[in-house]
Amino acid sequence: MKLCGNMLIAHGGGPTPVINASLQGAIEQAKKHSEIETIYGARFGAEGILSKELIDLGAISDDKISMLSQTPASALGSCRKKLTQDDFDQIMQCFKRFNIRYFFYNGGNDSMDTCEKIHRFASESGYDLRVIGIPKTIDNDLEHTDHSPGYASAARFVANTALEISMDAAALPIHVVVLEVMGRNAGWLTAASTLYKDKMPSDHIVYMPEMPFDSEQFIKTVVERFDKRRGLLVTVSEGIRDASGKMIGDTGIQDGFGHVIPGGAAHQLAQLIIQKTGLGARSEKPGLLGRVSMTHVSSIDSSEAYSAGSCAVKSAVLGKSGFMVSIAASRETEYSSEMELVPLSCVANKEKKFPKEWIVGTDIDKPFKEYCTPLLGDCSPNFVIL
Amino acid sequence: MKLCGNMLIAHGGGPTPVINASLQGAIEQAKKHSEIETIYGARFGAEGILSKELIDLGAISDDKISMLSQTPASALGSCRKKLTQDDFDQIMQCFKRFNIRYFFYNGGNDSMDTCEKIHRFASESGYDLRVIGIPKTIDNDLEHTDHSPGYASAARFVANTALEISMDAAALPIHVVVLEVMGRNAGWLTAASTLYKDKMPSDHIVYMPEMPFDSEQFIKTVVERFDKRRGLLVTVSEGIRDASGKMIGDTGIQDGFGHVIPGGAAHQLAQLIIQKTGLGARSEKPGLLGRVSMTHVSSIDSSEAYSAGSCAVKSAVLGKSGFMVSIAASRETEYSSEMELVPLSCVANKEKKFPKEWIVGTDIDKPFKEYCTPLLGDCSPNFVIL
Repeated sequence: MKLCGNMLIAHGGGPTPVINASLQGAIEQAKKHSEIETIYGARFGAEGILSKELIDLGAISDDKISMLSQTPASALGSCRKKLTQDDFDQIMQCFKRFNIRYFFYNGGNDSMDTCEKIHRFASESGYDLRVIGIPKTIDNDLEHTDHSPGYASAARFVANTALEISMDAAALPIHVVVLEVMGRNAGWLTAASTLYKDKMPSDHIVYMPEMPFDSEQFIKTVVERFDKRRGLLVTVSEGIRDASGKMIGDTGIQDGFGHVIPGGAAHQLAQLIIQKTGLGARSEKPGLLGRVSMTHVSSIDSSEAYSAGSCAVKSAVLGKSGFMVSIAASRETEYSSEMELVPLSCVANKEKKFPKEWIVGTDIDKPFKEYCTPLLGDCSPNFVIL
Repeated sequence: MKLCGNMLIAHGGGPTPVINASLQGAIEQAKKHSEIETIYGARFGAEGILSKELIDLGAISDDKISMLSQTPASALGSCRKKLTQDDFDQIMQCFKRFNIRYFFYNGGNDSMDTCEKIHRFASESGYDLRVIGIPKTIDNDLEHTDHSPGYASAARFVANTALEISMDAAALPIHVVVLEVMGRNAGWLTAASTLYKDKMPSDHIVYMPEMPFDSEQFIKTVVERFDKRRGLLVTVSEGIRDASGKMIGDTGIQDGFGHVIPGGAAHQLAQLIIQKTGLGARSEKPGLLGRVSMTHVSSIDSSEAYSAGSCAVKSAVLGKSGFMVSIAASRETEYSSEMELVPLSCVANKEKKFPKEWIVGTDIDKPFKEYCTPLLGDCSPNFVIL
C-alpha cells in the first residue's frame, strides 16, 4: 500500500568508517520515490528527534551528498541514549508534527532495540509508520547478518596496523608491543589482527573478551613466546576480563546504556610485562582511529554499507516495517553478497560473540581467516624482508 | 682521491615510514660506483656491527631492493645502544676485517653522535674511512637541516588522525578525546595536529614538551573550551612535563641511552578530566603507528629520504667524510629542496626544539603551518559537513 509522507534517518552509537556511505545510499534511494516527500536527518541520533532538531537532507546538493561516503565519523552526529517511556511519547509527537512515515535508524544492537520499540510503539498507537534498521558496528556483534557494515574497514585497519606494529617490534631488539583494539564484549575486531600473521616477522599472541584473562599465565606466555631478535606482538581487546568477570581496563565509568567504558588494558599489560619480566614493553591504543580512519576503508564494506542504506529505503517503500537489513554472503568461488531483511526483534539487544571453537589458545583458527579476508577487499600488503 | 673497498650501512634508533627509502637510495647509488665493492648492511644497527652480522645487500635482486621504499619499519633492524670505548675498538676491528671503507649510519641525534665518534676514531687511528650520516627522525629535532626525513610522513599521519578524531569527538555529545603523539622533548610532531584545525568541527588544544604542563590550568582550559555539541580534542606530546621537569607519563624505565621512556600521558589526562570535570573523556595513543603507517607516507618525504641516502653515497665517493646530509628547502613560490652536507659535530647530540615564538597559549601560530604544510605533499582531506 502506498504511504506518502516524510522520512527521517538518524544514527545511533559510535560511528564506523562507512556509516555515512549508508546515509548516502538511503538519501539517494529516497530521492527516487515520490511517496517520500521531505528527507529529514536527526542531529545526534535520538537526541535530535527529542529536541526536534531535524535537517532537510533533500535540500543539500547532489554533489555534497555524493561526498558522504568519503566523510569520516557520523555526518549527522550520533548519541548513546537509553530511551524512557516519556522519550518514546515525545518521539511519536515529533513524528506526528513532521508527518514522518518512514524512519531509518543506523546503529548496533542497542539502536536496534530502540528501533524495535519505536516500531512497536507506533504500531500499538495506530500511527502508520514504516521502520527499518540499518546495521552498523565495527564490533561485528549483530546477530542474523553475515557481518555488519563498518566491521570490514575497521578489521582492515586492525590487520594492517598489527602487521606494521609487528614489523616495528621486530626491528628493535628487546621490544614487546601490546596493541589495544576496540571491543567490549566481542573479539571480532581483535581477531582481525591475526589476518596477516603469516607475514609477520615477530610472534603474535591474542587475548579477547571471550577468554578469561589470567595475568600469571599471560606473563608465562610472553616470556615463552618473546624472541629477542624478533620481538613479540600482543593484541588485546579493550574489554578483556579476569575469571571473576572484572574488566582489566575498567575506567569506573558507564555510558548512556549503563555499560562499563573500558580503557587502558594494554597500558596495564605493558606495565605488568615491565615489572614481572624486565623486558622492554610499550602499549599502543589507536582506539577510535579504527572507526574513523578513511585510509583503510574496504571498498566492499563501503559498497555494502551503501546498499544497506539503499535497501532499507526501498524495502520501506515496498511496505516492509519492523526489520533490519542484513547481509547474506557467499564465499563459494568469489565473494558476493546481497541484502535481506531480518525481524528487529531477532537482533535487538542480542550480541553475536566470536565463536569459541575458532579460538585456539592465544591464536585464531583458519575458519576466521576464510570468513574475514574476503571482506577486506584487495589490500594485501606489499613489502620486502631482507 | 679514489678509495676502493666495501661499504657498510646501518640504522640507529626508531624507524620512520621512509627509512627504507633512504636505504634503497644508498644501495642503488652504491651500485653505480666501481670503487664500492661489496655493499654490506648491518643487522640491528651498531649491535650487528659488534657481532659482525653483516648481510650482502648487493646480492639481493634489484626488484626486491626497489620494494624497500614500500616496506614499513626498519628493513635492516635497528638498535638504541650507547657505545663504549671497547665497542669502538670492536667496530674498527669489524671494519678492518671486512675492509669497510664507506660507512653510512641512518639515524637521529644520538646516532649522529655515534657516527661522529666512528669518524674521529678512524681518523685518529689512521684508518682510511669515509663516514656520512643520513638524517632520520619523526621527531624533526635534528639541527642544521630544514627538516628530517621521516618527519613529514609522521606529521601527515598526525594531521589526518587529529582531524578524523576531532570529527569523532564532535559526532557524539559529551566527548573529550585526548590524543597522545610521540615526542619526548620536541613538539614538532604534536604541532602537526593543528594543520587541519580550520577544518575541524571540534575545538582543539595542544600541549607540548616546550611548555610546562600545569594540571589545574589544563582542567580550567578544558572546561572553558569544551562544547557539548562539538566536543573537544586535546593533543599532547608523550613527553610533557610539569614545572619541576617531571614527565607526566614517566614509565620509570630508560632506553639504551639513559633517556626516560614516556608512556601514558594521554591516559592520565583523560582520567584527570573524568575525575575533575565529570565530562566523558577517552585517550588514544596510536604511538608507533605514526612511524610505521605506510598509508600516510608523504611522496615528498619518500623522495627526499631516497635522495638523502643517494647523496650520502655520492658524497663519500667524491671524498667527503664526517658530514651528515641535510635538506635545504625553499618555499618561495613552489616547494623545492636539495641535499647539502653539514659537519657531524654540528648535529651530534643537539636537539632542535620547536620555536617558542610559534606557540601561542594552547595553539600553534601560522608560521608553522607555512613551514610544515608543503612537506605533506598533496593530501588535503575531502569530506562534507552537513
